[in-house]
Amino acid sequence: MHISEITHPNQLHGLSIRQLETIARQIREKHLETVSTSGGHLGPGLGVVELTLGLYQTLDLDHDKVIWDVGHQAYPHKMLTGRYHQFHTLRQKDGIAGYLKRCESQFDHFGAGHASTSISAGLGMALARDAKGEDFKVVSVIGDGALTGGMALEAINHAGHLPDTNLMVVLNDNEMSISPNVGAISRYLNKVRLSPPMQFLSDNIEEQFKHLPFFGESLTPEMERMKEGMKRLAVPKVGAVIEELGFKYFGPIDGHNLNELIYTFNQAHQVQGPVLVHVSTTKGKGYPIAEKDQVSYHAQGAFDLATGKAEPSSKPKPPKYCKVFAHTLTKLAENNPKIIGITAAMATGTGLDKLQQKLPDQYIDVGIAEQHAVTTAAGLACEGMRPVAAIYSTFLQRAYDQIIHDVCIQNLPVFFCLDRAGIVGADGPTHQGMYDIAYLRCLPNMVVMAPKDEAELQRMTVTGINHTEGPIAMRYPRGNGIGVPLMEEGWDPVEIGKGEILRNGDDILLLGYGAMVPTTMQAAEILSEHGIEATVVNARFVKPLDTELIFPLAQKIGRVATVEEGCLMGGFGSAVTEAMMDNNILVPVKRFGVPDELVDHAKPEEAQAEVGLTSSQIAEQVLESFFKSEKEPAKQAV
Amino acid sequence: MHISEITHPNQLHGLSIRQLETIARQIREKHLETVSTSGGHLGPGLGVVELTLGLYQTLDLDHDKVIWDVGHQAYPHKMLTGRYHQFHTLRQKDGIAGYLKRCESQFDHFGAGHASTSISAGLGMALARDAKGEDFKVVSVIGDGALTGGMALEAINHAGHLPDTNLMVVLNDNEMSISPNVGAISRYLNKVRLSPPMQFLSDNIEEQFKHLPFFGESLTPEMERMKEGMKRLAVPKVGAVIEELGFKYFGPIDGHNLNELIYTFNQAHQVQGPVLVHVSTTKGKGYPIAEKDQVSYHAQGAFDLATGKAEPSSKPKPPKYCKVFAHTLTKLAENNPKIIGITAAMATGTGLDKLQQKLPDQYIDVGIAEQHAVTTAAGLACEGMRPVAAIYSTFLQRAYDQIIHDVCIQNLPVFFCLDRAGIVGADGPTHQGMYDIAYLRCLPNMVVMAPKDEAELQRMTVTGINHTEGPIAMRYPRGNGIGVPLMEEGWDPVEIGKGEILRNGDDILLLGYGAMVPTTMQAAEILSEHGIEATVVNARFVKPLDTELIFPLAQKIGRVATVEEGCLMGGFGSAVTEAMMDNNILVPVKRFGVPDELVDHAKPEEAQAEVGLTSSQIAEQVLESFFKSEKEPAKQAV
Repeated sequence: MHISEITHPNQLHGLSIRQLETIARQIREKHLETVSTSGGHLGPGLGVVELTLGLYQTLDLDHDKVIWDVGHQAYPHKMLTGRYHQFHTLRQKDGIAGYLKRCESQFDHFGAGHASTSISAGLGMALARDAKGEDFKVVSVIGDGALTGGMALEAINHAGHLPDTNLMVVLNDNEMSISPNVGAISRYLNKVRLSPPMQFLSDNIEEQFKHLPFFGESLTPEMERMKEGMKRLAVPKVGAVIEELGFKYFGPIDGHNLNELIYTFNQAHQVQGPVLVHVSTTKGKGYPIAEKDQVSYHAQGAFDLATGKAEPSSKPKPPKYCKVFAHTLTKLAENNPKIIGITAAMATGTGLDKLQQKLPDQYIDVGIAEQHAVTTAAGLACEGMRPVAAIYSTFLQRAYDQIIHDVCIQNLPVFFCLDRAGIVGADGPTHQGMYDIAYLRCLPNMVVMAPKDEAELQRMTVTGINHTEGPIAMRYPRGNGIGVPLMEEGWDPVEIGKGEILRNGDDILLLGYGAMVPTTMQAAEILSEHGIEATVVNARFVKPLDTELIFPLAQKIGRVATVEEGCLMGGFGSAVTEAMMDNNILVPVKRFGVPDELVDHAKPEEAQAEVGLTSSQIAEQVLESFFKSEKEPAKQAV
Repeated sequence: MHISEITHPNQLHGLSIRQLETIARQIREKHLETVSTSGGHLGPGLGVVELTLGLYQTLDLDHDKVIWDVGHQAYPHKMLTGRYHQFHTLRQKDGIAGYLKRCESQFDHFGAGHASTSISAGLGMALARDAKGEDFKVVSVIGDGALTGGMALEAINHAGHLPDTNLMVVLNDNEMSISPNVGAISRYLNKVRLSPPMQFLSDNIEEQFKHLPFFGESLTPEMERMKEGMKRLAVPKVGAVIEELGFKYFGPIDGHNLNELIYTFNQAHQVQGPVLVHVSTTKGKGYPIAEKDQVSYHAQGAFDLATGKAEPSSKPKPPKYCKVFAHTLTKLAENNPKIIGITAAMATGTGLDKLQQKLPDQYIDVGIAEQHAVTTAAGLACEGMRPVAAIYSTFLQRAYDQIIHDVCIQNLPVFFCLDRAGIVGADGPTHQGMYDIAYLRCLPNMVVMAPKDEAELQRMTVTGINHTEGPIAMRYPRGNGIGVPLMEEGWDPVEIGKGEILRNGDDILLLGYGAMVPTTMQAAEILSEHGIEATVVNARFVKPLDTELIFPLAQKIGRVATVEEGCLMGGFGSAVTEAMMDNNILVPVKRFGVPDELVDHAKPEEAQAEVGLTSSQIAEQVLESFFKSEKEPAKQAV
């Protein structure tokens, strides 16, 4: 059988190990071909080919549920569940998503994109099954990195307390999240993995005890306890910690040995209550270049399969925002030992790996643990340090209460740097950074800002470091800057609460926020071609809003439009509208931003067009709203 | 020495055990006197009197830092740090706060109100200390309940990985959070606590091994491992799980034995790296009535010290919102086995204990684990159940990403019931439910509603259960309803997105949201006395907003005011303003709500007055804004 013939995962039932191995090879070929052509997550999927095949041979996926944590390792799953022939459209507009999505396939039982959710979701399904009196298996597959997320530990604590609820957790242990893992749990798993097998002692321990000279036939309670302890000691691999938490433990097993996988899954399916199967896998398995450099080949753009090198881009691009941020922060940190950069397992993504290399003592990676990251930052701030929490917009959602309860209420100077704010492109809805403006600006004491380009990002980084009165947040987009000249050092901070006028015109006031400022300028140029002259303001701050600058302009010009790459509900435009209304400035405001819907995966420019945020769409809408009607309600309204 | 003479905790240094015991008695007296008079947290503080005294005798609080998790057990700390004489003002306006606050005392090293934050904060301080090359002790005191919060586990995972960072965690283990604890960790701690001491074996194990007949002097690697295992086995109390996670473990010790506490703390202070001291305490210790009923005496209003009975209130009050909610949900659940109520360790607070008693199979307590609670609800919803996540507004902040990522993006029908929304009174800033309108309404697929009174809460509970198309949230306040007639069953659901007109008038349109509707009606009555007639609308839904009802009224009347008990930035009034502006309805809107500042502890009515939300303040401001100026900009604006 060829993988291309598989339209339902149950077709794997009854295949021989040799047949499965053939399919494994075919999956890897397709996987490498697709990701090397169009980019995506390389290492995670390659690591779980056998795990997926082995697991699915032991399940009936018409009834059983599998929840893949994060979902970026589910490419083999996608190929085995009817999407092999569309797989080449991976992460492209209207193509196959890079993560799991319930609306994409009946076999995507739970969507994800963030880590650490699968055990909770699986437990919910298992509890529902039991409440309905139904009978199917629920399997949550979670990486060892995701296991450091507090939510996964909350779920283990709960599931381990329910001996009658059948739930299988498959721990996909590759010693990595995106970077090598941090923390005591990771170290413990390592120890378990490296322990020699001593099964014989465990199996025969009753017998052996009888033959020990000083024990004999009847054991005192102390000796009984000692015997139990001997079992554990003799078999360090049984995962004592996990068993103490109420899970039956199987493993560690070789995640690339189909025989061992199928045998163990079948054994574990027999167990009553929660069970954990510990599988050792190698990220990037089967593609030696990726096996050797697991960090670089976690996820990447198109590359040459033979060399592993990225496809040379046709023209040189401006540096990425995250690189500019990391360079600036590192430079500042060299002269200020109080600066501490904090990442939650995103050293390369945030660029903080640069800080780590240069100034390892001023760098902290807490693992996938955003809540802990933020409150650790609060603790550092209490002691006079300058903590810089560099966390993607979408992941900072995980630490919302910590921002409120530990930082804002105590007015502690933590500097939040939100990378990947706005539309992120191919990663889709789970990764869009849409809500940060709304969810941050409503918090007392918080300053909320965004640079118009990578040079202003440098200046605002200084602003953030200098702001010792309380918390401050800066958002900036994924991807490359716009190519403005950069300074190596010596940046002037931007003054808090001050915007700037970039262009003058009498017909409309365009207020741009953050990375949408260049688009706003382009829209102004298009309007100019239609005889409409715009004043363009780079707002810089949503909070405090530069009302001193904006109000007189709004009153004079009589028409306002706001432009942001974030949710319209409660965002920047909402802040402008609120402020004007509070001050009796009754001028019409047209707000451009992301409407109240999910934005699917696509190229960023495609997604922007989808939500009406290209410069020509903005110009057109401005013309339509303000200049096409017979009368001009705006001017009279003042 | 009498407790009243202690103005600095270092005065405890050098006191004898007998002297400390005397002070312990005096603390308990003051504690009982104060809480029985004015209400507050009774059990937690009584349980840690000796723990506090013992710990503080071993610390220099001019330099050392203590972080009390949650903070509601810190009454003894407050009395020992210069606040004995003000202690009778506990939880009253301008008096001593019920939780820790950095601005209240130099000895409140980190504020709290929510659980599970102390280890992260302490680790931040410890890392700052080491970065600065300073030398002081950091102690995080955390309850066993709070240890089930994922954030605390994230912190342990991180701290356990830092063998050079000195940090002491004191586990205050009373087998309870507010209710008895849930989960595998709790069960494990129980097991540890109940294990007989077998210290002798551990202490002498090297010696004893040499004398065992089959071991002899030189041990093979297997035998070495066996010896290590014997140690663990011989001393089950050493907390194998905790040691595997990188912490040195001391305990469990008797938390009411000062000798044992001081001896152990001193020992533990000598340890390099992270150390955990496991202290067994009894909630309510020293007040037998509270020891016997730890749930009821966790926190309460004024009561009679001799009997423990609540002071009879002068007149009968309407039922509490949470009771009405619980009654309604339980009734609905009796006829609908798909309804599952979920609480995160707040069975009594949310009223779900009633559901638990009647329908235990339709009730889940996940422990202090809001993230896990929400994603478990998502899992239940996938399988067709009707999960009802009953979580306070302020605690739901902890699950923000789960609401977005697991519920809204997948459009799963989870019903969020946010108790304690708005001003909560004596608990202060950490517990105010201020942000939920803003942080929920910006999420795609979410319906956001609030009932005007307890009868409408019953109807909206039906609405929430019936809404199977996606997520829906209902907010309601702390405390008693307003006394409207209630139905035992058979409630009509409120139609989604439909408000109602409560009063007609031509001069101003008042839009009330949720529990502020009655206040809005009162404001209308006051305005009427001034000759101003208001139309009052009970908006019911922030999302979808009933624009069909609101827009024509706004256009006709020409003046609008919105009233909500939540943050003004991004809230209900903001939604109204956005919608009107988007539809070119240029009518002035005056927004009443909570301004961009923290609201301190006080009686709810005092706090409302503080932020300008009483009916007379609203009426006055409406008059001032709309009717005192010479011209009326509103009408012309249309």
